[in-house]
Amino acid sequence: MKHLPILITILIVLASCEPKKTNKVLVSNADELNEAISNAESGTEIIMANGQWEDVQIRFVGQGTEYQPITLRAETPGEVIVKGRSDLKLGGEHLVVDGLHFKNGASPSQSVIQFFINEDTLANHSRVTNCVIKDFNKPQKNMQDLWVFFKGRHNQLDHCYLAGKSNRGPTIRVDIEGNQSIKNHHKIINNHFGPRPPKGGPSAETIQLGNSSTSISPSNTLVANNLFEKCNGEVEIISSKSNFNEFRNNVFYKSEGSLVTRHGNYCTVDGNYFIGDENSPHIGGIRLIGTGHWVTNNYFYNLQGEIFRAPLAVMNGIRRSAINRYIQVTDVVVAYNTWVDCKSPWQFGVGSNVDQKDVLPPSEIRSETPIRTLVANNVIYNSEGDEIPIVRYDSINGITFKNNVINNQGMDFEGVEGLKQIDFSMSKLEENIWIPASSFPDIEVYQGFEFEQISEDIFGKPRTETNSIGAVNGNNPTPPNIMDLSLYGPDWFDPIPTEAEPKIHVVKTSEELVNAVTNSNDGDIIELSSNRYEVDSSLTIVKKLTLQSADTLQKSLITYSGNAGTPAFKMNPKGELTLKAVKLVGSGENYAFASLKENMSSLYNLKVIDSEISDFEYVLKAYKHSFSEFIMFKSTIIKNCTNGLKLSSEDDDRGEYNAENLYVVDCQFENVNQNVIDYYRGGYDESTVGGNLIVKGSTFKNCGADEKNSILINTYGIINVDISNNTFQNNKVKLVARLWGAKNNSESNNTLKNSGQIIVEQNLPLKLMY
Amino acid sequence: MKHLPILITILIVLASCEPKKTNKVLVSNADELNEAISNAESGTEIIMANGQWEDVQIRFVGQGTEYQPITLRAETPGEVIVKGRSDLKLGGEHLVVDGLHFKNGASPSQSVIQFFINEDTLANHSRVTNCVIKDFNKPQKNMQDLWVFFKGRHNQLDHCYLAGKSNRGPTIRVDIEGNQSIKNHHKIINNHFGPRPPKGGPSAETIQLGNSSTSISPSNTLVANNLFEKCNGEVEIISSKSNFNEFRNNVFYKSEGSLVTRHGNYCTVDGNYFIGDENSPHIGGIRLIGTGHWVTNNYFYNLQGEIFRAPLAVMNGIRRSAINRYIQVTDVVVAYNTWVDCKSPWQFGVGSNVDQKDVLPPSEIRSETPIRTLVANNVIYNSEGDEIPIVRYDSINGITFKNNVINNQGMDFEGVEGLKQIDFSMSKLEENIWIPASSFPDIEVYQGFEFEQISEDIFGKPRTETNSIGAVNGNNPTPPNIMDLSLYGPDWFDPIPTEAEPKIHVVKTSEELVNAVTNSNDGDIIELSSNRYEVDSSLTIVKKLTLQSADTLQKSLITYSGNAGTPAFKMNPKGELTLKAVKLVGSGENYAFASLKENMSSLYNLKVIDSEISDFEYVLKAYKHSFSEFIMFKSTIIKNCTNGLKLSSEDDDRGEYNAENLYVVDCQFENVNQNVIDYYRGGYDESTVGGNLIVKGSTFKNCGADEKNSILINTYGIINVDISNNTFQNNKVKLVARLWGAKNNSESNNTLKNSGQIIVEQNLPLKLMY
Repeated sequence: MKHLPILITILIVLASCEPKKTNKVLVSNADELNEAISNAESGTEIIMANGQWEDVQIRFVGQGTEYQPITLRAETPGEVIVKGRSDLKLGGEHLVVDGLHFKNGASPSQSVIQFFINEDTLANHSRVTNCVIKDFNKPQKNMQDLWVFFKGRHNQLDHCYLAGKSNRGPTIRVDIEGNQSIKNHHKIINNHFGPRPPKGGPSAETIQLGNSSTSISPSNTLVANNLFEKCNGEVEIISSKSNFNEFRNNVFYKSEGSLVTRHGNYCTVDGNYFIGDENSPHIGGIRLIGTGHWVTNNYFYNLQGEIFRAPLAVMNGIRRSAINRYIQVTDVVVAYNTWVDCKSPWQFGVGSNVDQKDVLPPSEIRSETPIRTLVANNVIYNSEGDEIPIVRYDSINGITFKNNVINNQGMDFEGVEGLKQIDFSMSKLEENIWIPASSFPDIEVYQGFEFEQISEDIFGKPRTETNSIGAVNGNNPTPPNIMDLSLYGPDWFDPIPTEAEPKIHVVKTSEELVNAVTNSNDGDIIELSSNRYEVDSSLTIVKKLTLQSADTLQKSLITYSGNAGTPAFKMNPKGELTLKAVKLVGSGENYAFASLKENMSSLYNLKVIDSEISDFEYVLKAYKHSFSEFIMFKSTIIKNCTNGLKLSSEDDDRGEYNAENLYVVDCQFENVNQNVIDYYRGGYDESTVGGNLIVKGSTFKNCGADEKNSILINTYGIINVDISNNTFQNNKVKLVARLWGAKNNSESNNTLKNSGQIIVEQNLPLKLMY
Repeated sequence: MKHLPILITILIVLASCEPKKTNKVLVSNADELNEAISNAESGTEIIMANGQWEDVQIRFVGQGTEYQPITLRAETPGEVIVKGRSDLKLGGEHLVVDGLHFKNGASPSQSVIQFFINEDTLANHSRVTNCVIKDFNKPQKNMQDLWVFFKGRHNQLDHCYLAGKSNRGPTIRVDIEGNQSIKNHHKIINNHFGPRPPKGGPSAETIQLGNSSTSISPSNTLVANNLFEKCNGEVEIISSKSNFNEFRNNVFYKSEGSLVTRHGNYCTVDGNYFIGDENSPHIGGIRLIGTGHWVTNNYFYNLQGEIFRAPLAVMNGIRRSAINRYIQVTDVVVAYNTWVDCKSPWQFGVGSNVDQKDVLPPSEIRSETPIRTLVANNVIYNSEGDEIPIVRYDSINGITFKNNVINNQGMDFEGVEGLKQIDFSMSKLEENIWIPASSFPDIEVYQGFEFEQISEDIFGKPRTETNSIGAVNGNNPTPPNIMDLSLYGPDWFDPIPTEAEPKIHVVKTSEELVNAVTNSNDGDIIELSSNRYEVDSSLTIVKKLTLQSADTLQKSLITYSGNAGTPAFKMNPKGELTLKAVKLVGSGENYAFASLKENMSSLYNLKVIDSEISDFEYVLKAYKHSFSEFIMFKSTIIKNCTNGLKLSSEDDDRGEYNAENLYVVDCQFENVNQNVIDYYRGGYDESTVGGNLIVKGSTFKNCGADEKNSILINTYGIINVDISNNTFQNNKVKLVARLWGAKNNSESNNTLKNSGQIIVEQNLPLKLMY
């Protein structure tokens, strides 16, 4: 029987060459679907009829084979809309789901799509492809779910578009609890992760692989060739919490976060693009914690993030760290990467807090600097000189630098041996992508241990014959077209919404105003052509609207006479209101603006410009679990109100807060009795780094008289605060502000008259969250 | 060029068939050796001439190839003695060391043999074979070294004999710091680890793989087919502190410790034999901490260890443990093992200390019970019923039991679903090895996830066709001859010393006595035939000696008139004295027995039987860094001494102590003013679980008058204490003893008259060591 293996091989080959038997079943409702699933055999293709499938909970269980999977697909990709309280669970072997569109609904369970039915029935070798999940949010942001939840092994999500998740929970989580789900070799490839708005607190990653408890286990998940576009959910776009994961050739486009090796070790980060924006300080690159990661062939452009959000952040660890804290960086290799026009691209010892050892317990002190770490063959190019290309938060003695170059336009800086300042130029390959105009003939390529395994450059070109430092091997590459959207997500879906030309509705009467708010389309403008309007119940803002006086020099007056406790403008999920040149007057007991009290499934935005707000109980009241990405008051007078801007309802001390950005610019506050600006975040979780408050060029007069805590501008727990060029006059408070010195809080050029003072405290007492 | 790979393969095959070129060089001294090494090419064989090589520090650097390694070998295996201040370091590729015998010396460096020259020059694909290291100890036990120190990759230690290490440091350590040393696939195979005496404190493992800092890294080390004989150094024989290690087919013979997966995860423990002894409560089996270990096909016989030393100890973990503490047990598989006549073979939740949460910090509380753990297809056989075959220190709800059987001779116990009590018999295959007399036709074999990978049984027989629960597949096996010493270690070395017949030296005069102590051979007996001897300087005990009166009813008197502070018997390393039926009288200012003040490179033992000791400053004084495995006073009168047995010099609070076993049986203590029994261990390190004190059937009268701490019998920090059936009369102390309730301390049937009391404290305040 010596030849048995060969015989078996031949039989297998013959078997796999058999014509596939396909059994197609068209189903039109849940019952038919369930029956088709229970009858399905390997090779069966279940076709969901085009149309609206509402409140369906699909349990797709079956045993397909490698060459004859069981397929569940849309009759026409994209024309099967899954909506309402719907979800999809897979269990078994070799299942394929193709072409579904999840919208206008939310999962009634813990996930929209999951690769298991229950703990006993996992899916393996299964695939979800060519699908869309958009805005499929639970009604309130604190209600947690996942959009795609992996268990089992060898599952794949590809060519899907996922965007708009605003409730708690990563968009995708790979779970590796249990031997059935380790060494999973899942693939998350060729997807388009569209915009995810900031959540205002933790647990809003786009991808999370494992968790701290399973961070000792091998996951071996591949995340490759995806586009991450404006994935702004929180500080971690990808949170790798397991071992041996690979992140290859992804594009991170203007996403306010980083790829973070949070827990777990031995990850490969190769050939990725990190594209920033000079206007955002929140777009990061790669942040490293732990052991044995290889960061190679990556390209970083125009990143302005700092510290945790640095282009390259190599963290300090905690001595004998708990598994949910910070393992020391050791045995890490950073090689063949290119940074172009990034601010302070290399930051080492990030998170060092040895100076806080008197106020924090030893188990929180990140004292262990990176060791046995190699930084080699990298290129930095700055078109303007950078004063601090290398930021040292602690000793970098454990890091070896070899054969790196920088063009810093001749500007001096504190360098290291192994980073040579030379003159070279860059040429544009395509939008955002610059490569050295020529290779570096005088710079030898360093051959580190196992560097032969870095066999290709960022474009997949071999490094064997021609080689060079930096992400490109030195040859003339063809442009990679990283922003060619056809490379990512489903073919049938156009992620760029067709924006209708905004329509202008001129309204003369109060009734017309109310109707216009209801009936106008997203993006429209309502022009107030009369002097005076009276509104007696809340105007509900569910879309993008601009409300402005026809003559901006002659502000129209809106009097709101609605009940006490109701707002003139009720900000709903996705409501975006711009109020321009309007006088808004209340009854003294009602509110100018407020979120819904519950069911804020998405965020709202608010801009108030050149206006006057007076006689309200609250100017703005943000209820718990409401969130705004952007609130701006500009050139606006706010007076005679009991409360000002109240954004302090997240009182669970879980690191959450009510608004990402609050800007108050060139405004006048007068006779606002309390909570003039009350912006709060409780619970110390440094993994999220908002919110952001700017108070600038404004005047505060006779305010805070009833303020119970005696602080005019409350910013407790807010990370980024800038109070500058304001005048404070006759405010009966002890403090104008108490700033958090350890974070990015600052004040300058303020004039304080009879108004208490501004103090800075280095460490605020905050409840630790972990 | 399609056929290029084939062509290359053919060329490689041809190349490897080339006749090996061998270049032999005989060297006779260090200079010649160094020159030969520096001239060596692949294929060179350097032959060390037979004889004594003293104070040689061999730096064996070279570049061999797979088929033509560079070899350094003994002219005749075992006839090259490396002694004095000598060591061996390897660096390069494909090096072989063969046939050396290290004895009568100690390494002047951190190791005897190491697989690296320095951090830049490691050894790879290198091998040390057929060598012996015996008693090659540093002069004092606190001086640390390793006998074999691995770095690099693919190195091997095989067919070696290592025994007698008594100083601090594991016998073997595999170091995985740095990418060059991970995934090392080292092999430690076919070695004989001879007796390692207890060290009395931590850091005396036989093999340590990694450390807590690198426990997140893959080691992939294989430890297979070794014999561990009486490896009693500490509680861990093998301390696995890294990932993916394999322990296969080793024999643990009467070794007082366990194989412990201390840190790191996903280890395989397959096909090992754990042979116990009914007389030792210290011989353990396998202790599990962490995730993903597979314990399969192991055989456990006659093990009496408990708790940390249980035959199978599955520990509780700490919530969010630090990496140097206790990771929760998850995803562990224990399948196809057999326990025969082991006391309480299964112990779960070991180390649970939830009841101590008020006295210990949260980071020390082992509250996390094992989860996602499967115990299947195992066999337990007890020839006498066991009241508690399953010990639950905490909930076992996270453990699934499937298709296990037990023959408990019908005795009831608290069982679990999945462990069936049935009647079956065992037959003897060879000494210590029992197998079921027939397979279990009524018991189905459970097919767990990936159980098909357990493809063989303990004897390497396939489980594919015939299969059964337990370590044996159900077929009639041939005896494995596990104690056939030719399977382990070098052929040329006989580990069993030829014991000479003890000689009796009858001594009449003091001078004859002194000469006999000096000139007798190991194991001899000195008989005192006169009534009276006078000794004026210390008798040095460097070997095993018995000193006894010729007529045991007529005890001879030895008067010791040596200087104050000197002992009558100076216990040297390896000194083993039995004093029988002797009256020993001092000057009041000198000592009866004492260790050396320094350079106690090995332990000493002392038995005093039917004797009388009086008029000494100290009866026994153990100096710092001295250690005795066994001290016994039996049927002996001790009186009129300033101090009694002082074993409390390890004052660094590092978990160390001066004696493993101290037995005081049927003795009389009278007028011993202080330190009557003073036995101390400071520093809480539960990984070592000594010492052991028995005080039984003895009388203490008028003692402790000058005792500063007012406690007659000091046992602070000693783990196992048994004080029973004693009489305490007129001792001017507050306490006779203060026992440690949380440990194995007990007292019973003691009579206390005018002597204070015995108290029990649950928790002693001890300095944590980690």
